[in-house]
Amino acid sequence: MTIREVGLRDGLQIIPRTVPTAAKLAWIRDAHAAGLRELEVGSFVPARLMPQLADTAEVLAHARTLPGLVASVLVPNLKGAERAIAEEAHAMLVPLSASHAHSLANLRKTPDDVVAEIARIRAARDAAGSHTVLEVGISTALGCTLQGEVPASEVVRLVQAVLDAGAERISIADTVGYADPAMVTRLFEQVLRVAGERFDTAHFHDTRGLGLANCYAALQLGIVRLDACLGGIGGCPHAPGASGNVATEDLAYLLASMGIATGLDFDALLALRGRLAHWLEGEPLHGSLWRAGLPKTLRREEVAA
Amino acid sequence: MTIREVGLRDGLQIIPRTVPTAAKLAWIRDAHAAGLRELEVGSFVPARLMPQLADTAEVLAHARTLPGLVASVLVPNLKGAERAIAEEAHAMLVPLSASHAHSLANLRKTPDDVVAEIARIRAARDAAGSHTVLEVGISTALGCTLQGEVPASEVVRLVQAVLDAGAERISIADTVGYADPAMVTRLFEQVLRVAGERFDTAHFHDTRGLGLANCYAALQLGIVRLDACLGGIGGCPHAPGASGNVATEDLAYLLASMGIATGLDFDALLALRGRLAHWLEGEPLHGSLWRAGLPKTLRREEVAA
Repeated sequence: MTIREVGLRDGLQIIPRTVPTAAKLAWIRDAHAAGLRELEVGSFVPARLMPQLADTAEVLAHARTLPGLVASVLVPNLKGAERAIAEEAHAMLVPLSASHAHSLANLRKTPDDVVAEIARIRAARDAAGSHTVLEVGISTALGCTLQGEVPASEVVRLVQAVLDAGAERISIADTVGYADPAMVTRLFEQVLRVAGERFDTAHFHDTRGLGLANCYAALQLGIVRLDACLGGIGGCPHAPGASGNVATEDLAYLLASMGIATGLDFDALLALRGRLAHWLEGEPLHGSLWRAGLPKTLRREEVAA
Repeated sequence: MTIREVGLRDGLQIIPRTVPTAAKLAWIRDAHAAGLRELEVGSFVPARLMPQLADTAEVLAHARTLPGLVASVLVPNLKGAERAIAEEAHAMLVPLSASHAHSLANLRKTPDDVVAEIARIRAARDAAGSHTVLEVGISTALGCTLQGEVPASEVVRLVQAVLDAGAERISIADTVGYADPAMVTRLFEQVLRVAGERFDTAHFHDTRGLGLANCYAALQLGIVRLDACLGGIGGCPHAPGASGNVATEDLAYLLASMGIATGLDFDALLALRGRLAHWLEGEPLHGSLWRAGLPKTLRREEVAA
């Protein structure tokens, strides 16, 4: 079971403050030292659109020096993918909004335009002889603030289309925090029938408190990689003040308590959360474990196992 | 599916501030108007031990005037039960700590002493020709801050013992917020084998963020009554600053989103939460829904259904 820490991308992208590159490098070092082995470190988007992620190449280069660390980046299009390939990211995640309305508003492309771009990305990756894994993240897959409901049938259709276009891995994202565990179960079962083991990753926001319940539902279906952000950063721009991604430390506790090995050091994780609060001064952090600490019944040797 | 609002008892019992009786009566009226149909309104304990609940008889009398409202009280012993019977509570909940250490520290009785007291309570109830339902709440059933682990076998033994002693309904409580969904599933399956439908209620704290995930696990096993507190009040005295019970409004949202009818009016619930903040001025409230609001995809007619 892998927790992919996405704070450096999904956390920072909606925070206006720019975290200095030196702090990002320390963040990555500390996350690695705490036992995290997959990090989404940034996004190859034009710097004028997202100046806070303009140092993604430098951050990625640093992450690639740490032993055993899988460093991924988000790429919105072929141009971004070409950078990810050139900079030798271990994986690149192409987001595809299952909501037509969100896709147009966000990327000025229809979902099917993105499918076509994914085919071009796969061709470019193969032509370069690159090993960068091509993951497609189906976003707004459980509802959309613009469009409202997103039919499961459309999600399934798009999953099949991106697999045909060459996606190697599928993640499903509840981008705006609309999911509940029953919705997760229904949708994921359908996607698994199409994608099998290639659908192995889920991404939940905790906007309305259901983030960990949704993670639990995903676990029950065999999902092996869950995205999260230390301190639950990454609030949704459509829900001001709402908490963002599932908090890494709380998800790690859920897994450890259930006896699922994570290899994480909770003291180190919580110490990093404290430094994050400093770097993001003024931004609210979320989560529960930092306040209550580990329960007496959770043995440290179990946690580390 | 019933949400039992326990803020007037579990929420208030650890808050030093005494809420005026008039405010409690308004709280009950508003909770009833928002659609809540089961309330734990107080506890028949000596006033010197818990002055903030000293008006329980008056509060209960008011709750009994509201149509369709089931009003329960906590009773620690026969003396309290005699008051609950005399005041015609619809139900009385006798707590029994599955943790030997907690039972001694809290009640100066062993769990088996409490079993014997439950037999006396059942006899007194029957002798009075009373209709007050006798519920036993197995507390610290998923771990204890004093004792650490509480063996499931001991919980099961005690459930059988209290059923033999005359308990009509069993609830299981994660008093200190140590549970995870896998623990809930394992323990509840064992208790259901012993108690069948008489085990129908669960009580979770959200100390480490797993409250709603645990509720979801309980729902999957057929539990039909869940305790909660508006604003997630009821922090654990052993985890200062930690959030308390599962927040009623978040649990209501979980259920409504899953299509489980609750009959609750979210606007009224959140308005009452606001008044609660006023009455408890200075006490932290918790939960997520109040910040983000209902998602666009949840239709109001579905919520009310």
